[in-house]
Amino acid sequence: MITLASMKKKVALGIDIGGTNTAFGLADEQGRCLNDESFPTWAHQSFARFFERVAEKIDAMLARIPQEYELIGIGVAAPAGNYYQGTIDAPSNFCWGKVELVRLMTEHYHLPIAITNDANAAALGEMMYGQAKHMQNFIVVTLGTGLGSGIVVNGDLIYGHDGLAGELGHTLVEPDGRECGCGRHGCLEMYVSSRGICRTVFELLAQRLDDSELRQISFNELTAEKVYEAAQRDDALARAAFEYTGRILGRALADAVACFGPAIIIIFGGLARAGPLLFEPAQRSFENNLLHVYKGKIKIVPSSVPKCNIAVLGACALIQKEIEKMNGAARQTPKAPPA
Amino acid sequence: MITLASMKKKVALGIDIGGTNTAFGLADEQGRCLNDESFPTWAHQSFARFFERVAEKIDAMLARIPQEYELIGIGVAAPAGNYYQGTIDAPSNFCWGKVELVRLMTEHYHLPIAITNDANAAALGEMMYGQAKHMQNFIVVTLGTGLGSGIVVNGDLIYGHDGLAGELGHTLVEPDGRECGCGRHGCLEMYVSSRGICRTVFELLAQRLDDSELRQISFNELTAEKVYEAAQRDDALARAAFEYTGRILGRALADAVACFGPAIIIIFGGLARAGPLLFEPAQRSFENNLLHVYKGKIKIVPSSVPKCNIAVLGACALIQKEIEKMNGAARQTPKAPPA
Repeated sequence: MITLASMKKKVALGIDIGGTNTAFGLADEQGRCLNDESFPTWAHQSFARFFERVAEKIDAMLARIPQEYELIGIGVAAPAGNYYQGTIDAPSNFCWGKVELVRLMTEHYHLPIAITNDANAAALGEMMYGQAKHMQNFIVVTLGTGLGSGIVVNGDLIYGHDGLAGELGHTLVEPDGRECGCGRHGCLEMYVSSRGICRTVFELLAQRLDDSELRQISFNELTAEKVYEAAQRDDALARAAFEYTGRILGRALADAVACFGPAIIIIFGGLARAGPLLFEPAQRSFENNLLHVYKGKIKIVPSSVPKCNIAVLGACALIQKEIEKMNGAARQTPKAPPA
Repeated sequence: MITLASMKKKVALGIDIGGTNTAFGLADEQGRCLNDESFPTWAHQSFARFFERVAEKIDAMLARIPQEYELIGIGVAAPAGNYYQGTIDAPSNFCWGKVELVRLMTEHYHLPIAITNDANAAALGEMMYGQAKHMQNFIVVTLGTGLGSGIVVNGDLIYGHDGLAGELGHTLVEPDGRECGCGRHGCLEMYVSSRGICRTVFELLAQRLDDSELRQISFNELTAEKVYEAAQRDDALARAAFEYTGRILGRALADAVACFGPAIIIIFGGLARAGPLLFEPAQRSFENNLLHVYKGKIKIVPSSVPKCNIAVLGACALIQKEIEKMNGAARQTPKAPPA
């Protein structure tokens, strides 16, 4: 348990469970990363096996923490991480159903533990240590296999009534558009994400006549990296796919501005590494689609959090914030002594 | 000025400035309406003339307040009402530019005065006195000439960084769709509003062959009321226009749920008076387009605030909330006595 008057330096453990890798990091209260490790998630294996491997990794990391540090809690970022319920709610691409991660981990570690989804964690990381420091209104968009978003208004994350709000990825950008895993058609995530850009490539291959190295790759073999590499080699069709993706992203973000009025929009994730190939058309389309009052006022920027995975750092921020809240509440309503 | 220890009953004055009429109401702290009056706005006249008429009306109302009541402040709801700046920012359909309403009224009345837009005021009214009492997350949509929205997350209105956020009416529902007054194409407001349904009628008149009484009315003469009356007389084309409007509304609200996670969505305004003609297709399309986790959980309901215009009552709620905040701040940081 936490020693209240400890003289040790406090560190939080952040865990970012991704579809491919799971990353672990220890960070102090200033967001300095002490340690940063990861292993493959193997999302096709059972959750029980995954949990065993997580526990082994945590134990090994804790065994190596220098004497002057003390672990105050564990924050977890995961796709479909449900902050209100402490669960991971059957994310797509994982063979797990709904799992009670916070309950299981609390039984194991007797420490404050909290979970949220990866985009929300990233938003907390940006708010505590990154470009959104002290901002009350901003949006973080994660462009990976899917499209996640963490939205802060009035200084707090939007969770909504059920803990699942703030999902720009599942707003409609094309009526009766591409089929989405959520059962609907035309969701933003189906256009702007690693999978989205691959689908765009196949649409362009069908529409256009020009030669492209991407004509030799099957749908199942195509990745966003391959599209990026082709674009770097000046493949016109690959560049057009980025142009189209950026255009849809910019338009959707302009709508998000009308809804949330952010001071800044921060983008991170695999697809964001494409840099100007994506950001230039996104910025152009964003400005074209913004309401007049916002034009020229809101920047779209890549995440600049150094070292540590931003979601790992965000998971650390999550648990640090939770502990602050708990301490605040404890100060306000001291428990009655046992009768 | 406010007498702090007054034994009188406190009332707030709410003013709702609309494109057609401006309504005034006095409400006590329980949201009971004492008095409810209005006059035509004459938005084509100068703001100076409008302000004179407003002042005359207020003076006349105050002269008639019973002795046991004391006016504590004035709240104003207006299209393009800017809460942060205390201004009305050149609303469309008004010949005024940007006007500093709060400054002008404060000089005149020496009372706490605040302004917000009509949809935000309605949301405050619903939160303090209506169906959203004690709710932390909900949306109010106003369907009049345009489409306004007041969005509450974590118990507070979304104003965003510039005070202008929460505008669902200017999110895109049809890429490259209908031209909007805001300079873009395909905004929700151009489909779901009194003007929107008239445009839908003209699209349907062009597309379809069936006879309709609406074929005899010019674009400039058509109103949402006429479409409603034709639909009541079973005019198939008029009914189709409501069906289409409801379908777009339901789809847009499903997107809003993914963004904001409201517990309830409350609709009011002229077009909402069409009742089931609009609500039935809206509810169907809403359920069809909701993410699975939300299906069957969120109601779309018409506003049920009795008597008084809900925006008038919301304007009263606005100033009551402001005064609460001011008193709270005063308690926390007492002013130093003058040196």
